Parts: sequence; structure tokens; C-alpha cells
Amino acid sequence: MLGNFSYYNPTKLYFGENAIENLPGELEKYGPNVVLIYGGGSIKKNGIYDDVVSALEKAGKNVAEIPGVMPNPTSGKLREGVEIARAHNADLLLAVGGGSVCDYSKAVAVSIHCDDDPWEKYYLRQEEPDCEIVPVACVLTMVGTGSEMNAGTVITDPDSKLKIGHVYANEEVFPRFSILDPRYTMTLPKEQMVAGIYDIFNHICEQYFSGYDDSASDYIAEGLLRAVIKAGRDSVKDPQNYEARSNLMWTATWALNTLISRGKSTDWMVHMMGQSVGGYTNATHGMTLAAVSMPYYRYILPYGVPKFQRFARNVWDVDLYGLSDEEVALEGLSCMEKWMKEIGVVMNLTELGVTEDMIEGIADGTFLLEGGYKPLTREEVVEILRESM
Amino acid sequence: MLGNFSYYNPTKLYFGENAIENLPGELEKYGPNVVLIYGGGSIKKNGIYDDVVSALEKAGKNVAEIPGVMPNPTSGKLREGVEIARAHNADLLLAVGGGSVCDYSKAVAVSIHCDDDPWEKYYLRQEEPDCEIVPVACVLTMVGTGSEMNAGTVITDPDSKLKIGHVYANEEVFPRFSILDPRYTMTLPKEQMVAGIYDIFNHICEQYFSGYDDSASDYIAEGLLRAVIKAGRDSVKDPQNYEARSNLMWTATWALNTLISRGKSTDWMVHMMGQSVGGYTNATHGMTLAAVSMPYYRYILPYGVPKFQRFARNVWDVDLYGLSDEEVALEGLSCMEKWMKEIGVVMNLTELGVTEDMIEGIADGTFLLEGGYKPLTREEVVEILRESM
Repeated sequence: MLGNFSYYNPTKLYFGENAIENLPGELEKYGPNVVLIYGGGSIKKNGIYDDVVSALEKAGKNVAEIPGVMPNPTSGKLREGVEIARAHNADLLLAVGGGSVCDYSKAVAVSIHCDDDPWEKYYLRQEEPDCEIVPVACVLTMVGTGSEMNAGTVITDPDSKLKIGHVYANEEVFPRFSILDPRYTMTLPKEQMVAGIYDIFNHICEQYFSGYDDSASDYIAEGLLRAVIKAGRDSVKDPQNYEARSNLMWTATWALNTLISRGKSTDWMVHMMGQSVGGYTNATHGMTLAAVSMPYYRYILPYGVPKFQRFARNVWDVDLYGLSDEEVALEGLSCMEKWMKEIGVVMNLTELGVTEDMIEGIADGTFLLEGGYKPLTREEVVEILRESM
Repeated sequence: MLGNFSYYNPTKLYFGENAIENLPGELEKYGPNVVLIYGGGSIKKNGIYDDVVSALEKAGKNVAEIPGVMPNPTSGKLREGVEIARAHNADLLLAVGGGSVCDYSKAVAVSIHCDDDPWEKYYLRQEEPDCEIVPVACVLTMVGTGSEMNAGTVITDPDSKLKIGHVYANEEVFPRFSILDPRYTMTLPKEQMVAGIYDIFNHICEQYFSGYDDSASDYIAEGLLRAVIKAGRDSVKDPQNYEARSNLMWTATWALNTLISRGKSTDWMVHMMGQSVGGYTNATHGMTLAAVSMPYYRYILPYGVPKFQRFARNVWDVDLYGLSDEEVALEGLSCMEKWMKEIGVVMNLTELGVTEDMIEGIADGTFLLEGGYKPLTREEVVEILRESM
């Protein structure tokens, strides 16, 4: 069944080849001062920067820039961006990049008109904004996080090695509009693409593997899982396959824009462990999730056999004939593991640079959330991390 | 693959038991003059009217009423409602009912500040509004049409026997908010519930059975189909099953709020024939769709075998072993037919009061749309209608 909830998602999306043509029309709706936010500069090589700057110039915007947003945006970079946007009197923050850049832009947006330190207020204390929120828009160049249509942000504090997410309740944090051109994602290095594919898959799993009830949200999740499995395979075989890349892009958006968690509990423990690994190693987000997933799901399976069995049957078409419930459930995870290896994700923490001496620290940085079939203790987190080495 | 599109759906939803508690907070956002719109008066018997009026009174609203909206709202009733809303200087139209009442309220909303005749402008000429649109909100009491989260309306003109839909491009036609309490749907007569279940199912089919490409939208559609099949069965067995009724309600919303048609072609011919039957007989919408569905889908199957085969496999778990593609595809439709009989929809037009002498007129009133695997001629429509008798 579905528990009580509200649903509202005001982000407008422009999807498809040359979707950037919709940027000028949208820019008209905002004031003159735009802050252009991007990452390491790959957008200058592949022409996306030129597309965006040309639209900003034609619209007569007064543009400041925050370049150099890193894959795991830091608290220091956040403070720096807030200063730039504040000095520029920003009317719009235009994020051009992947989830990190979109996340970062939302984190800046809620902090420009706020006197508190953003890391302490929004991440350590998990407060909601009590100030004006500057509008954010995204031009997406990498697929996976769903940040283009949600109100979530993740920031890393290098000093404390903490990587913490905040999903805002305030609806003004959602991007006002996002431009999703699958072609813009095609110059991405293959490893980044693969990490994104697993990020999508895991977002759906984290919302799916929780609760026993028959819920409409889980059926939608199964459809999205089947879509990402197919599109992931096809994208890895041929990254220039527009069919696959467009399906990946759309699946990513719906995997984490609040839809499939409506009315049900969720389990974000893979993200909690993965984020803590990210705080220690600066490894690619999707790969940190992949490295801990199989040990985690095999560990909790006995506590959630009916859902894992359903996963095997409805997502992987496992033949039930002659198998016990638990055997069917395990077979589903084996199918998942085979697919992960097929698309080429990193299957252990060692490859991501984690060493034995980090395990205790990573466990300390892992927030223990409720919602899963087996709420974990710190000791169990250590055990799963060791299993993931 | 996904073709180019934009997506924006600004309706805020409050879902679950006692969701009506969110009405007062929403009412604060609108001016004092509210027009309360409802149907035959069942809401006065089941207490929903009292719940709503009590919230309106507490909010100090000045309320006018448009009661008596019929299952197939007429052009005359539309003109009458426009006069009432105009005289009341309406700030908000509050629809309390099923899809007909929601549709009707949107039809009134675009016509209050417009001098043209609404039937001619919006239905015969299919124009977009060029005037102020009055906000609409819905309290849903019947599940099926998806009208609570889309910009569609259907109006019937008894003189010409034409029943015509209009899906507005203007985003202000979407309801501002909708209140979805599954308990509010539980006093509905079983036949109405069953008609709603088939309406949901068919909305998904109309968007699914079109195009050959591998599209993320079709995977989501398959998830929704599996959800409505299960929830439909359970609801018919026990209409008081909250799990089933809540899943039905949520599935209905997503079956027709534009999501699953993004980036793909669609085929609305079952609705075109069903609506024309409605124009002639005033039969329940969902039943008109059910009555023509099997003859229609069996007729177009040879032109779209791969998609019907996929339907059989992914929606009905048809075992492919030893069967040809076409046999698998046909087996999927047989599963669908069996399910339709199980939930108890009307399987032919005769039961709906259609007589031989109406066939030509119904065919004349059937708009021939493109998008299906086999675009129909008028002669083929006649053939399918006869097959449906």
C-alpha cells in the first residue's frame, strides 16, 4: 500500500538533441546577473561552453563564473562560490555539468542570502533555508545523480573527511529548468558513464529494497530498473548509441526525482557507506556504491527475502521452477552481479584506494539510517566494508 | 529511443487518508470567491461535501456552486457553468468528483474570461486560450481519468452527438493542487470502479502500443500496467482493500499525466471510438473503451507484432517456449481479455445500448488519428465497431 505523502516537482525539462535551443527563452524570465558554474573545463573542449555562453550573450546577461567545481564539491569551494555569487548579485545560477555541479549550485543558491556558515547550517545541522533562495537551472553533461530534477545536494568537508547529503524540503531548491541533451553526455569518458549507470541503478534499489507491501511505487521502480539494465548494456557496447544514451538520461531523472519513493520507506545505506568512502578517497561516487553493493545486499537478503525474490522474478526474469524462495532471491542478486561486471563497475574498495587502516574511519563517517530490512550497527558496517575489500 | 520533448507538470498532490486536511492551507493562496463544482450529489451522502464545505467556511470563502455535472459533461452545461463562475468573479474553481467534474472545471476555467463560445473555440476549432485562466483544484472521488494531474478536458455536444477532447498546451490549465484520498473512492458503486480500472489500463495501452523503438517510457508503462492489473484484481475481490485502492489511485494519476508519452508516438484510437460511442449512448467512459478494445487490438496486432510480443512477455509473463512471435503476441491479448472478464468490464457494444443503426453515426464521430501501427480508415472503424457488437 501507499502511505500518506505529498508530491510536487516544479522543474521544467527540455529533453533531446539541441535542447539547448530552449535556453534563450528561459533566460528571459530571470534578471540580468547570471553565475555560470562548471567543473574541470571539459565543456570548453566539447563545445558546450560555447553553446551556453553564446546564449547568455545573446540574452544580454551579465555573467560571472565559478569554474573548477570538483567531483566531490568541498565545503571550502562552497564558501568560495557563495562569495562570488553574492558579489555578483546573482539572479540565476546556471549549472553546466553533472550531478556535482548541479548539487553544488543548489548548495550555493540557499546560502547566498544567509549569514550562517553553509556547511554547518545545512550539512552538520541539516537546517532548512530561512532566507531568499536564488533560482538554479542546469545544463546536464553527465547522467546519474538525478540532481537536475530534485532538491538534493551533497557536500564534502575535507578536514573532517565527512561527505554529507541534504535533501531540502523547500520546493524553491528544485532547479527551475534543466536542459537534457543526450548528445552532451556522449563525450564523457567511459568509466564516468559506467559509474553514472550504476548510480542510477542503485538509486532505484535504495528506494525499492524497503517495505514488504504491494506498492505502486515498486512497480514503477521495476520498470525503471529494466530500462537501466537494457540501456546500460547497450551504452557500454556502444557509447554513441543515441537510443541507449537517451533512455539512460531519462531513467536517471526519474530514478531520483522523488517519484518512486512516494508512499513507502526507503533504505539509503549503500549511499551512506559509499559517501563515507568518497570522503576518504575522493573516488567516483557511482563506483563507491558499486564496491559495497553486493556484500551489503547479500548481508540483508535473509531479512527481506520476499522483496529480493520479487526483484529476481520481475526485474531479472528468474525462472522460479524448482527453487526455494531464498534460492530465487539469491539468483536475482547473482544476475545483478553479472550485469555489474558486464558494464564494468569497480567491484571492491581496494581498487578505489581504500586501505585496511581507513575502515574504522569510513565506518565512523557512515550515517546509520533506518528503513532497510536490517538496520545496521556500526560493527555490521565494518563487517560489510571488510567484505567489500 | 526518446524523441525530443519538454516536460513540466506543476500540479501539487496530497495523497492518502485524510489528505483533505491539506485543503485549508492551500485555500489561503487564492482569493475569496470559490466556485464549488460537483456531480449528481453522492458527495452529500458520503460526507465529502461536508468536509469540503467546512474547510471553505473556515477559510472564510465566498462560495457559489455548480452542482449536477453529468458523467459526460455537455456543451450546454459548460455554457451554464461559465455564466455562474463569471457572475461570481471566481478566484478558484474547486472540483469535487471524478474525471468528468475535473474535466468540466478545467473547461470552465479557460472560458470565464473569453468571449467566444467555448464548445466552438476549444472543441470544434481546438484553439488555445488567449485569456486569463482561472485556477482549478480537485478533490478526487473517483479514479481513472488522470484529470487531476493533466491539462485535458472532454466535452459532449448532444445536438451533434460529438464527444471531443482537448489537451491544452497552456500549463496554467493543470490543476494547481489535487487531493487524493483513496478512502473517498471507496463508496463508489462497483461498476463505476471497474470502469475506472479499465480506463487506467487503456490509457497506458494507448501510449504503449505505438512505435517500435526501445524507449524508457515503455518500461515505465509496463510497470504501471503490472500495477493496475494487480490492484484491479484485488480491488474487485474486495473494494475495501486500501492497499489495492491506493495503488489504483496513484497508478491512474501517472497513467495520464503526460509522463509515459514523453519522447514517443501514441495511438488514441480506442478512445476515439469509445468517445464517439459515448456521444451516442451516454455510456460510462471506461466501459465504452473496454467494449471496442479486443476487436481493435486483435485487428492491429499483425502490424505491430514486436510490441504485442513484448507486452505478452513483460506484462503478462507469457512463456515464449515453442511459440512463434505472433502466437506469443496473441497470447498476451488473451491474457488481457481474461483479466478484463475477471474484473467484469462490458465486453461488447450491444450491452451499452448501441444498435446496428448507430454504427455509421458512431464511425462518423470517430476522429481518425495517426500514431497507431495501422492507421484506420472509416471503413475499418465500421468493421471494428461491428466486431464489437
